Amino acid sequence: MYRSNTCGDLRLTDAEKEVTLAGWVSKIRRMGGMTFIDLRDRYGITQLSFSQDADRTLCQQAGTLGREWVIRVTGTVKERSSKIPHIPTGDIEITVTTLTVLNPSKTPPFTIETETDGGDDLRMKYRYLDLRRNVVRQNLELRHKMAFETRRYLDQRGFLEIETPVLIGSTPEGARDFIVPSRMNPGQFYALPQSPQLFKQLLMVSGLDRYFQIVKCFRDEDLRADRQPEFTQIDCEMSFVRQEDILQLFEGLTKHLFHTILNREIPDFPRLSYADAMRLYGSDKPDTRFEMTLTALKDLTGGRNFPLFDTAEYIGGIRVTGSAGVTRRQLDELTDFVKRPQIGATGLIHVRYGSDGTLKSSVDKYYTEDDLRKWADRSGARPGDLILILAGETEKTRKQLSELRLEMGSRQGLRDKNNFQCLWVTDFPLLEKDETLNRFFAKHHPFTSPRPEDIPLLDTDPGAVRANAYDMIINGVEIGGGSIRIHDSGLQKKMFTILGFTDERAQEQFGFLMNAFRYGAPPHGGIAFGLDRFVSVFAGLDSIRDCIAFPKNNAGRDVMIDAPSRVEQEQLDELGISLKPVD
Amino acid sequence: MYRSNTCGDLRLTDAEKEVTLAGWVSKIRRMGGMTFIDLRDRYGITQLSFSQDADRTLCQQAGTLGREWVIRVTGTVKERSSKIPHIPTGDIEITVTTLTVLNPSKTPPFTIETETDGGDDLRMKYRYLDLRRNVVRQNLELRHKMAFETRRYLDQRGFLEIETPVLIGSTPEGARDFIVPSRMNPGQFYALPQSPQLFKQLLMVSGLDRYFQIVKCFRDEDLRADRQPEFTQIDCEMSFVRQEDILQLFEGLTKHLFHTILNREIPDFPRLSYADAMRLYGSDKPDTRFEMTLTALKDLTGGRNFPLFDTAEYIGGIRVTGSAGVTRRQLDELTDFVKRPQIGATGLIHVRYGSDGTLKSSVDKYYTEDDLRKWADRSGARPGDLILILAGETEKTRKQLSELRLEMGSRQGLRDKNNFQCLWVTDFPLLEKDETLNRFFAKHHPFTSPRPEDIPLLDTDPGAVRANAYDMIINGVEIGGGSIRIHDSGLQKKMFTILGFTDERAQEQFGFLMNAFRYGAPPHGGIAFGLDRFVSVFAGLDSIRDCIAFPKNNAGRDVMIDAPSRVEQEQLDELGISLKPVD
Repeated sequence: MYRSNTCGDLRLTDAEKEVTLAGWVSKIRRMGGMTFIDLRDRYGITQLSFSQDADRTLCQQAGTLGREWVIRVTGTVKERSSKIPHIPTGDIEITVTTLTVLNPSKTPPFTIETETDGGDDLRMKYRYLDLRRNVVRQNLELRHKMAFETRRYLDQRGFLEIETPVLIGSTPEGARDFIVPSRMNPGQFYALPQSPQLFKQLLMVSGLDRYFQIVKCFRDEDLRADRQPEFTQIDCEMSFVRQEDILQLFEGLTKHLFHTILNREIPDFPRLSYADAMRLYGSDKPDTRFEMTLTALKDLTGGRNFPLFDTAEYIGGIRVTGSAGVTRRQLDELTDFVKRPQIGATGLIHVRYGSDGTLKSSVDKYYTEDDLRKWADRSGARPGDLILILAGETEKTRKQLSELRLEMGSRQGLRDKNNFQCLWVTDFPLLEKDETLNRFFAKHHPFTSPRPEDIPLLDTDPGAVRANAYDMIINGVEIGGGSIRIHDSGLQKKMFTILGFTDERAQEQFGFLMNAFRYGAPPHGGIAFGLDRFVSVFAGLDSIRDCIAFPKNNAGRDVMIDAPSRVEQEQLDELGISLKPVD
Repeated sequence: MYRSNTCGDLRLTDAEKEVTLAGWVSKIRRMGGMTFIDLRDRYGITQLSFSQDADRTLCQQAGTLGREWVIRVTGTVKERSSKIPHIPTGDIEITVTTLTVLNPSKTPPFTIETETDGGDDLRMKYRYLDLRRNVVRQNLELRHKMAFETRRYLDQRGFLEIETPVLIGSTPEGARDFIVPSRMNPGQFYALPQSPQLFKQLLMVSGLDRYFQIVKCFRDEDLRADRQPEFTQIDCEMSFVRQEDILQLFEGLTKHLFHTILNREIPDFPRLSYADAMRLYGSDKPDTRFEMTLTALKDLTGGRNFPLFDTAEYIGGIRVTGSAGVTRRQLDELTDFVKRPQIGATGLIHVRYGSDGTLKSSVDKYYTEDDLRKWADRSGARPGDLILILAGETEKTRKQLSELRLEMGSRQGLRDKNNFQCLWVTDFPLLEKDETLNRFFAKHHPFTSPRPEDIPLLDTDPGAVRANAYDMIINGVEIGGGSIRIHDSGLQKKMFTILGFTDERAQEQFGFLMNAFRYGAPPHGGIAFGLDRFVSVFAGLDSIRDCIAFPKNNAGRDVMIDAPSRVEQEQLDELGISLKPVD
């Protein structure tokens, strides 16, 4: 080793020891006849001291070093005269006797500090320097710990981590596959998996009973803010289980992670049906760090000839505590907020519940104070509160109210990143109807089992059938989701019929799984967690990007290595493909 | 859960308990008024018993079940009258009171037994059934344990598992990359990594100090017996270390795996220089489970006018203990063996050291018994031994002798799969000369550091420079290999010059790494293990295929899911590529 200790090791109890350290020059300070260097490595920072009186040459040499140079020093651990209490090595410094430059450094393009002067693009281009910053490195350390503790928890419970192939076949359903031309099979392509779904179900047919894998998955989608073309899943499947078994086991995993990593004890997760989540929060991934639930008001608004409310399918409000004193300008801002195309409301109605008990609204023309009081009472509003109301088609309006609720929660400081609220959302609809195509699609995927008591509805009212499907939500982020699968081939066949698959098409796309199911498939189910999101929620990050060592940008590019890129014509020739001229 | 216990749980101490089991029907036996079923799951086998006297209907129902049906039973644990000592559940059986068929099964295409009647092709097509066999499942369990214990060992030593990207850029050097067309960047391609080499070196530049990753890598090579287009590496890198630190730490990992998984204590690994390995074994991955080392005989063969020996650069022999009595036919067989094109020798010379002390050879025409005695003495031969001799160009002949040595080791039963012999081979040549191109290539890769004392030779005799590179060998299989990297940009530049890279080409191919190295690269080095091979050596398998859940065949095909395959024209259009017509 080039060192006897790391830069995070040494304490006052090590005083007078001779040590050798190696690391990066973080700061240089010259004071009178002294030069001080903060030497940094992954483990901490240790102060080096050089004195002109003791060794003029060495002290001068130290003065010539630059930021981010890699050096190695030998010296003696000394108690510092001015201690720095907030860093673990703050009681000591090293009086250096030997200094070796292991590698010089150009001046980095941005400062390697928690608060850096580097913009996003620059930091991504020089990601290897960005990773030297404590805040970024800590995210990777957290990610390592979460993955490791996940493995430990599952290993202790008899799960086997089994690698499924990355080069698989393309399935035209759903999001786009990345495809990989096969040189040995000209004209044919592998595809990269969007998830190991089919393979994990095959492993259950194989009797492996408890499977997991922390695995890269791939989706060639147009990238939104928080998506990456490659992402990591904690993918799990179990046999001979019912929904309750899966919820218990993976609620346990999540509690284990909170306990071992953040030292937090999380109480049993509340459970909310999809219907209730939509009714109370307007979202299937509610942020339950704060109340401000939706109140339906339609039945209290009739007979006053207000056309907007009279024609609306749904009218709902949220109560904003202590905000009756909101300014006109703030209300205009909120109106603009809900009118943004991403939200799409036509307007915002408000009711102020004055601290003197009076009620005033933007629809005073139509509604009496008594009317308003009924709304306020149902909303649970008290003097000093504000009620914000939207009206329109039920599902859309609830979603708009959900967005408004999140915005108000943020404005009121109710979305503390250190407050973790977990829950299960259950009883998702099995099917979703595409009204324009007049066709049902699987909400989760075509192997999701309906709730047994809803199976008769498959023939009469498919849209009402609830699935044995569940999502785990933390602070409004969908961390994981899964379902109990269909293991009965008759039921599976019925599902394919409802989804509009011909026998041929079902056989073509899922044939090998359906064949496998003919040889004794056990009842089974599973769940998959998005590791990137899981880590970013633990770290309190706004984007998954900062918990990924080498992320891609919104155009799917790695700007550091400049990929993707053109390849040699020779390579294309070998693969039997050619580029189409761009129009 | 569908069960109270697994099929491997129950013991005599559970007698009289009411239990519920679920699993696969492995065997059905009818005896008089009784029906017995072996119920199997991942954890074991439990006998179920049904009696006509107790419940005629139930017993008849049991009789209608078929092999591999999935059932669920409830019943009482009873002591068996005829116990089966070699299985853990052999003392008990379940007297069944309720039986539910969870899923029927078609008759499987081969028997789900350790000794199956299924051929390779059939087993691969129905891999999900093959995985039900204990012998195959145990390999996956072993693989899980090895990966988990590797992670635990490295985590305890401060290593962080960091995921590097799968969609990277193509590097034209070396083996072929798989490439992935980018829809969002038309005409451009990602490549799948052959290893995370560049990224792990960047992580060292980032100061992450200790990195590892168990990661899929990809090579589009023509597949030999023991290669897969996707394979798994245990990839590791450390900063501020010298070669000795890496050898110690990863020898420790290997000992840890032998200890925790196979309960074996492995002594400190012997170390052999590349030169000695070639001299003594004719191989850089010697199987050291047996001696039979090569003896150089050239200097003992001159002056007898035997043209083959007189013109040979190298003459070497191996001593085969107690084989003087080999038959003419066996010798002919061995001659055929060394003449096979894969080995390429022109003939085989033998010396029999009779148990009466006489020496006879196939070159008696040229050499006296005294000559032969000198050869025998140097080889360490004793009465009763056989010496096999090959002659020719040094390197080729040593390799041929190595093959012959392995063959003789196998014939003599010296290659016991339960005997594990580990060693390090060190001091590999830094460069390899391609004589036809008259150009040097990096033996390991262009970032491998020369041994410091050999650096002056770079200018005078590059071929003689030894690298700070090392391989770990177990039982003649290269399990892992690595090197100390160059961290000095001047030395790196010199290496590129020797390798015939222009500045432009070096910049184009390795620019982002070379740029990174300008910002303070620490001394670093690493190692990568082939997990597939590591597991197969532990499991005593001849092929890596059986420790991979879903392997591909020699044509790179997954015959179970029938991949790769054609894709829709629409998909190609979106990617801006087209297929070339096949000539």
